[in-house]
Amino acid sequence: MSGNTFGKNFKVTTFGESHGAALGCVIDGCPSGLKITTEIIQKALNRRKPNAVIDGKVNPAVTMRKEDDCVEILSGVFNDTTEGTPIALLIRNTSQHSSDYENLKNTFRPGHADFTYQEKYGFRDYRGGGRSSGRETAARVAAGAIATEILKKSGIQITAYTIKAAGIEAKEIDFSQIEKNLLRCPDATAAEKMLEKINEIKSKGDSAGGIIECQIQGVPAGLGEPVFDKLDAQLAKAMLSIGAIKGIEFGEGFAAADLLGSENNDCMHEENGKIAFDSNHAGGILGGISNGQTIIFRVAVKPVPSIFIPQNTVCVQDGNVKSTELQIKGRHDVCLCPRIVPVVEAMAALVLADMII
Amino acid sequence: MSGNTFGKNFKVTTFGESHGAALGCVIDGCPSGLKITTEIIQKALNRRKPNAVIDGKVNPAVTMRKEDDCVEILSGVFNDTTEGTPIALLIRNTSQHSSDYENLKNTFRPGHADFTYQEKYGFRDYRGGGRSSGRETAARVAAGAIATEILKKSGIQITAYTIKAAGIEAKEIDFSQIEKNLLRCPDATAAEKMLEKINEIKSKGDSAGGIIECQIQGVPAGLGEPVFDKLDAQLAKAMLSIGAIKGIEFGEGFAAADLLGSENNDCMHEENGKIAFDSNHAGGILGGISNGQTIIFRVAVKPVPSIFIPQNTVCVQDGNVKSTELQIKGRHDVCLCPRIVPVVEAMAALVLADMII
Amino acid sequence: MSGNTFGKNFKVTTFGESHGAALGCVIDGCPSGLKITTEIIQKALNRRKPNAVIDGKVNPAVTMRKEDDCVEILSGVFNDTTEGTPIALLIRNTSQHSSDYENLKNTFRPGHADFTYQEKYGFRDYRGGGRSSGRETAARVAAGAIATEILKKSGIQITAYTIKAAGIEAKEIDFSQIEKNLLRCPDATAAEKMLEKINEIKSKGDSAGGIIECQIQGVPAGLGEPVFDKLDAQLAKAMLSIGAIKGIEFGEGFAAADLLGSENNDCMHEENGKIAFDSNHAGGILGGISNGQTIIFRVAVKPVPSIFIPQNTVCVQDGNVKSTELQIKGRHDVCLCPRIVPVVEAMAALVLADMII
Amino acid sequence: MSGNTFGKNFKVTTFGESHGAALGCVIDGCPSGLKITTEIIQKALNRRKPNAVIDGKVNPAVTMRKEDDCVEILSGVFNDTTEGTPIALLIRNTSQHSSDYENLKNTFRPGHADFTYQEKYGFRDYRGGGRSSGRETAARVAAGAIATEILKKSGIQITAYTIKAAGIEAKEIDFSQIEKNLLRCPDATAAEKMLEKINEIKSKGDSAGGIIECQIQGVPAGLGEPVFDKLDAQLAKAMLSIGAIKGIEFGEGFAAADLLGSENNDCMHEENGKIAFDSNHAGGILGGISNGQTIIFRVAVKPVPSIFIPQNTVCVQDGNVKSTELQIKGRHDVCLCPRIVPVVEAMAALVLADMII
Repeated sequence: MSGNTFGKNFKVTTFGESHGAALGCVIDGCPSGLKITTEIIQKALNRRKPNAVIDGKVNPAVTMRKEDDCVEILSGVFNDTTEGTPIALLIRNTSQHSSDYENLKNTFRPGHADFTYQEKYGFRDYRGGGRSSGRETAARVAAGAIATEILKKSGIQITAYTIKAAGIEAKEIDFSQIEKNLLRCPDATAAEKMLEKINEIKSKGDSAGGIIECQIQGVPAGLGEPVFDKLDAQLAKAMLSIGAIKGIEFGEGFAAADLLGSENNDCMHEENGKIAFDSNHAGGILGGISNGQTIIFRVAVKPVPSIFIPQNTVCVQDGNVKSTELQIKGRHDVCLCPRIVPVVEAMAALVLADMII
Repeated sequence: MSGNTFGKNFKVTTFGESHGAALGCVIDGCPSGLKITTEIIQKALNRRKPNAVIDGKVNPAVTMRKEDDCVEILSGVFNDTTEGTPIALLIRNTSQHSSDYENLKNTFRPGHADFTYQEKYGFRDYRGGGRSSGRETAARVAAGAIATEILKKSGIQITAYTIKAAGIEAKEIDFSQIEKNLLRCPDATAAEKMLEKINEIKSKGDSAGGIIECQIQGVPAGLGEPVFDKLDAQLAKAMLSIGAIKGIEFGEGFAAADLLGSENNDCMHEENGKIAFDSNHAGGILGGISNGQTIIFRVAVKPVPSIFIPQNTVCVQDGNVKSTELQIKGRHDVCLCPRIVPVVEAMAALVLADMII
Repeated sequence: MSGNTFGKNFKVTTFGESHGAALGCVIDGCPSGLKITTEIIQKALNRRKPNAVIDGKVNPAVTMRKEDDCVEILSGVFNDTTEGTPIALLIRNTSQHSSDYENLKNTFRPGHADFTYQEKYGFRDYRGGGRSSGRETAARVAAGAIATEILKKSGIQITAYTIKAAGIEAKEIDFSQIEKNLLRCPDATAAEKMLEKINEIKSKGDSAGGIIECQIQGVPAGLGEPVFDKLDAQLAKAMLSIGAIKGIEFGEGFAAADLLGSENNDCMHEENGKIAFDSNHAGGILGGISNGQTIIFRVAVKPVPSIFIPQNTVCVQDGNVKSTELQIKGRHDVCLCPRIVPVVEAMAALVLADMII
Repeated sequence: MSGNTFGKNFKVTTFGESHGAALGCVIDGCPSGLKITTEIIQKALNRRKPNAVIDGKVNPAVTMRKEDDCVEILSGVFNDTTEGTPIALLIRNTSQHSSDYENLKNTFRPGHADFTYQEKYGFRDYRGGGRSSGRETAARVAAGAIATEILKKSGIQITAYTIKAAGIEAKEIDFSQIEKNLLRCPDATAAEKMLEKINEIKSKGDSAGGIIECQIQGVPAGLGEPVFDKLDAQLAKAMLSIGAIKGIEFGEGFAAADLLGSENNDCMHEENGKIAFDSNHAGGILGGISNGQTIIFRVAVKPVPSIFIPQNTVCVQDGNVKSTELQIKGRHDVCLCPRIVPVVEAMAALVLADMII
């Protein structure tokens, strides 16, 4: 396996299995002189943690599993300042219950990577998915926190939020609402309905999917490398590298298929001596290069594969394959959207930091 | 600019502007001993050329522009056999009319990369889009022809086709129909309607978008590199690196957002002593690794930005920005789908060849 | 800074400053199914540690500084078996005396990278050289231990040794002697003289250089990638990336400059139905590809720059440059050869593992 | 084979076999706005061509073989200005006599890569060495010409020259003499003696080696990337990637092995308010980073392997290995030094351009 590094200039290599000793990352290429503290990174990690209770309300969307996720900076920072040397970040695994997974030693969970890892490596860390677990994204969020500090200096702001969950759509986009509800939805009313629906799905032992939108503001024109390393191509790779994401679209996206050229083109005009666009159907990217407008994309999040309804699957012992029924135990999220929001932001930050350095 | 190489093992570097001397590519990493002739590559290139007339019918979807696209193998092949050394392929530009583009020297075409290239490089080859032109994909198709020969030896078959164009959807998928109609649509009846609609749009000087689906059959389980170089992440990058593509989805894709976990999970059972899946909602990829099922994805193609309806834009001379109206001349495609189909196949072939070597 | 990764297939990223919290590495690309334990790695690290006393004799060549170098495997190994996922190794810094370096905050040590790091990053971890310290090589040795396990399975054996130190040359190459003397010299008599000479140099507060030779046995023909990633080119890069090494030569090396073609060519003959070489002037590499013979190269090690004789240098405070005299304190090696021997072996192992995977 | 790309930012991919249709390169990452003409590149290529006659004297060191080496710019340059897009350069092979090589179809030339290529690829272009021929360096020199234009803008000047050939050493370094004699030797008197000696060796059908030194002036402090991509490590890789080079040393190089720390350290002092070095034993690089002094290194060039004295070798037909005697025909250089000088300069230019962009 050798695909654990992301980026060319701001290079992040992650490591760690969900139930091993630790997970973390090494960032190679962070400029020297940036102010970085453990607190900055910890704050970002806390956003990824199961947001179990807000305002006294229990969040049905996420697991009650305790994930401490305390980060330690091992290198690359001296006197709270980056040295230009590799920054290594360590997050120890603490409260993982490996015993929950003993029954999965020979059984493949539907919708998970158990089968494909077994096929690829001939050997598998069956404890909670090992490397394929969503826990791996904690290292991405930690690295993303540093990338975000770089972007801040360039005036770039990334905001992701849930626009659909369990079939319920957000009707308005009010950034101020995002962190006020358990779904990270920019529409408070829709958020209420989403929670209701998720509670209902949870009670049946099932799970739900959703759609996350991301806006990147303040990106100067000119980012992105033709022809293969286009900005949208890099963002697409970054997002599809998140386990639960099954699709991405920029600007009008799939809807553009039904538009006429005259409807989809963004015309231009002069405004205060500068070029201005009449619309943003393109989502801020033309020919793979940012055009100075807000970058907008949406990603599809599949329903959590760990459900409590018994499922048909197979069990392999000593090379013998047998059909069996699996009853998943433990604590699992019902809808991943609110926890993937910070991961989407982190991955977008890695893409942009890589290009802006 | 330094994003002109695709792949890590089967590395393809493309070069060339639409109206320069030539375009082409260098492939580094092709194994020795593969049978390759000019004919194999030329045949693939011919599929990308404007398919102007089929069965005596003029194709309204594509330009009548003559693109010779004759390929020459410069290196890496000796006695019709690859040597293991870099394979350089050359396609000279012949019948390009640069004069068609003189009026675009200072004016930015809406929906094109004119503005972003100018911003990025401070200097622009205004003749037909230069490097950002769709002509660049000829080099990809040439490289893809060699990748396809590698995949054939592993029993992998890639088939792309138009499932939507100008708002008309294909209702059935019959592979045998694809090359029989001008839209490369697997549904003959839908293809008729698409052509009709496109003719209507063309008469108004406008253009249309569409959706292309791609099936990859015969992929063994185990391809794809966690965590960042997942198979779907690499395919997403490959597809979004094609100029007109604005989105991608795998398996259920965006529809998965509305499904329950119990609906979206692909259960398994034993079949003839082996593992078999009950369904293929995942589109053949789990945790970024192929699971042995057919890989299925869809991409959104935006309407051609070159339309004959006058558009508002700006003209920049000596640093002065002025609003102006642009009337595009020349010959242009109305709907890119049929010409992008071989490009989608080529890029998919590059991704898989890179992983299978 | 972004040059902290070595290799393309067996990719090693190191991190850590000499007086920070820890140093270590992440290995991406190690195949699954390899038996790896902490002991295997610790044993290799112990060889790099100051070998202060052997057979009751104090080693004048090396520092008495205590470097614990205890390694912890953080990820990638489950049940003593590699998983195919990234292997992260951690070595905490324990007994570093940062206070020894307070006087170097504004003063540049001759022969060290203090000045160049300050120029490059505008900011410097002055505690013991920070990232430029030889301590960084501990992470390389740890990674090399794993690479060595891979090579063992292919029958490849790497042996480095001191053939010159403080001006004294080894006259015979007896592998069995290498680990029996403090210089890692394959000639016991020469080793005695080297130690004597080093003791003499040490008493004057000065330091010495030397030459290390490395033999790689069991390499199959065919390793190395023309034209830029030739086997010798990769080994040269690997060796020159070790701080104290100032030159490398393969086979006859610089002596080949004085030979005739008829003297330097390695003629061939048939032997038991196979090709055999009459000699090995080339050092086992032809056209950048291994030819099946033993690979032989030598590297030049400069004298340790930390000497106890007062030296002229400059001190920079608030941007003002002043000439000054520097008296280095602390504990320092006198001749690096014996401690660099395992680093040379480790780097050679990284090069070969990268090519053989 | 996948090692045909050099550099990370200024990336050069070369292609071509000595007797194929053409050779050339693609440069990805050259900044836009640089003035480049065919003449600039052609002039550099002409320096690499056999310099058969100077001042009416026939040069015994080089072959009389005619190599036209006419370059064509295929892309990336518009109106004599780089566009920021890939620059493809083409050099057609014209006067190659493939028939000279028919007798080498099954026989391996001593000192050449015939055997190793056969082992690696199982298939070999036996016409003049194919990809392993020195002709491949023409593409490097072409790319180097563009890199040199970039360096000129930063005030960096690279000068290589022969300091030893056929056992005769240069005693003085007078840059003005280099291009005035057939050996590119900075010492006119030594050059005379070298030629005499080479004539003598030539008359016996034998060949000679030598040493080339390279000085790089005007390099600012701070170039080079710790820890693996050190400036000297990159230069070492670049030089050892040239076929005939068997060793490299920086500054004092192998002589440093015999020096004391007090002799080898470069002390510093204040000079006009700036830091100045008392000496340059390090060769301009400390800790892998340029220190602002002149960079100096030397490379060992092996004697030309193609000699006219009969040699023992093997012939392989239908898998059967037989001892045989080989009599090489055709036209071959006697000493490569003068022709490698521009290749050394080109490779050094690639390394520095890659780091300075």
